[in-house]
Amino acid sequence: MTTDNQPWSREEFEAKLRGMENHYHIHHPMHVLMNEGKLSKKQLQGWVANRFYYQVMIPIKDANIMANCPDRETRAKWVQRILDHDGHPGDPGGIEAWVQLGMAVGLSREEITSLEHVLPGVRFAVDAYVNFARRAEWHEAASSSLTELFAPKIHQQRLDNWPDVYPWVEQEGYTYFKKRLTEARRDVEHGLELTLDWYKTREQQERMLQILKFKLDVLWTMADAMYLAYVNNMPPYFNIQA
Amino acid sequence: MTTDNQPWSREEFEAKLRGMENHYHIHHPMHVLMNEGKLSKKQLQGWVANRFYYQVMIPIKDANIMANCPDRETRAKWVQRILDHDGHPGDPGGIEAWVQLGMAVGLSREEITSLEHVLPGVRFAVDAYVNFARRAEWHEAASSSLTELFAPKIHQQRLDNWPDVYPWVEQEGYTYFKKRLTEARRDVEHGLELTLDWYKTREQQERMLQILKFKLDVLWTMADAMYLAYVNNMPPYFNIQA
Repeated sequence: MTTDNQPWSREEFEAKLRGMENHYHIHHPMHVLMNEGKLSKKQLQGWVANRFYYQVMIPIKDANIMANCPDRETRAKWVQRILDHDGHPGDPGGIEAWVQLGMAVGLSREEITSLEHVLPGVRFAVDAYVNFARRAEWHEAASSSLTELFAPKIHQQRLDNWPDVYPWVEQEGYTYFKKRLTEARRDVEHGLELTLDWYKTREQQERMLQILKFKLDVLWTMADAMYLAYVNNMPPYFNIQA
Repeated sequence: MTTDNQPWSREEFEAKLRGMENHYHIHHPMHVLMNEGKLSKKQLQGWVANRFYYQVMIPIKDANIMANCPDRETRAKWVQRILDHDGHPGDPGGIEAWVQLGMAVGLSREEITSLEHVLPGVRFAVDAYVNFARRAEWHEAASSSLTELFAPKIHQQRLDNWPDVYPWVEQEGYTYFKKRLTEARRDVEHGLELTLDWYKTREQQERMLQILKFKLDVLWTMADAMYLAYVNNMPPYFNIQA
């Protein structure tokens, strides 16, 4: 009984976090189909247009974390995430890189930035993440970003497979994935250090697994909404009279 | 051109709001199947368990509206919604009536109140509604409840059809639907009066149609998540190793 409540060591705790990879959306049928080249152009466009909403909300999520964080040193590091996404002199930023991806799959800039294709289910899932960042204690909010642990593999898969399976995607589309391969590794280092330091007791560590699970739920639910709309052909109100 | 920007009369505006009925979840395949008696016991239980999360969050939504409302008279009326759901001396309330519905379809009280069956997609949709009430101007938040315009019909359908198509549902299950038939009509009267008074210009009236659409999206997205999980047999992480 008592041994069950011992805190995990840093190594054990990190291994538990990494063990959540089996819930990462890389395993969702939407992403499995995508990786295997089985999405139509229209379906791939649907994913890119919807995922754009996540991209635009990430800096707002990060600004909420900073808004709750009294520690100057952490803010000084965390702000890099906002710069990476919003851009700064010399870097047009991740949001713009995603617009380029959208155009590389055949969408217009206006179609992407208007958010007109964004499904309510995707919006609600992303907003849940932003809202968590707004209301949670800041270490908890910061640690919820640790699905980044699993991101390099999914970006690398896209870089490896898309040129073969979606040869019609233009080269400019790959900038975002390449960019994130480096950035995500650095973000993970900082996020992991904060997380391993912050959660001390076993109960707290288990709570962190729940927080990571919440973030995994956000990503999985986004994929669910896109699957239902574009693979199952059931977008909202598909069956009603206009 | 100019005539296009004229405000609608009260009657026209009300007709526009009522015209949104074609987006009500009564038309969602999940509810169509339910009404036709085509859901299995397990699927019906899934709906009841998930919808319970909406029920428990409604008084929190209403408390958020009241928290932003400086008008005593409105609060004095609006508080009735909280009393109706949470209960008061002489009325165990709507949440408890929904627990009774859950038990009438074969769930245990603990299974219902633990929220263990609630899908992330349902949670995110409901939370989007609560969050809107928390952050929106209070008239806007109050008017978003007007999907109640369409609720009496769906409750009446259940009262009419379930005894035939789901004869195994116990009688105690019907209390909630009966209770809401009266309450929803009174709530609609107050909500509609507030809404028709508040939105003056055509632009504001059109904004209100968007707010109602947002609330319809919440209900439709809840049904989407349940359909994918229980009809399409794709609950979260259905395909991964434990």
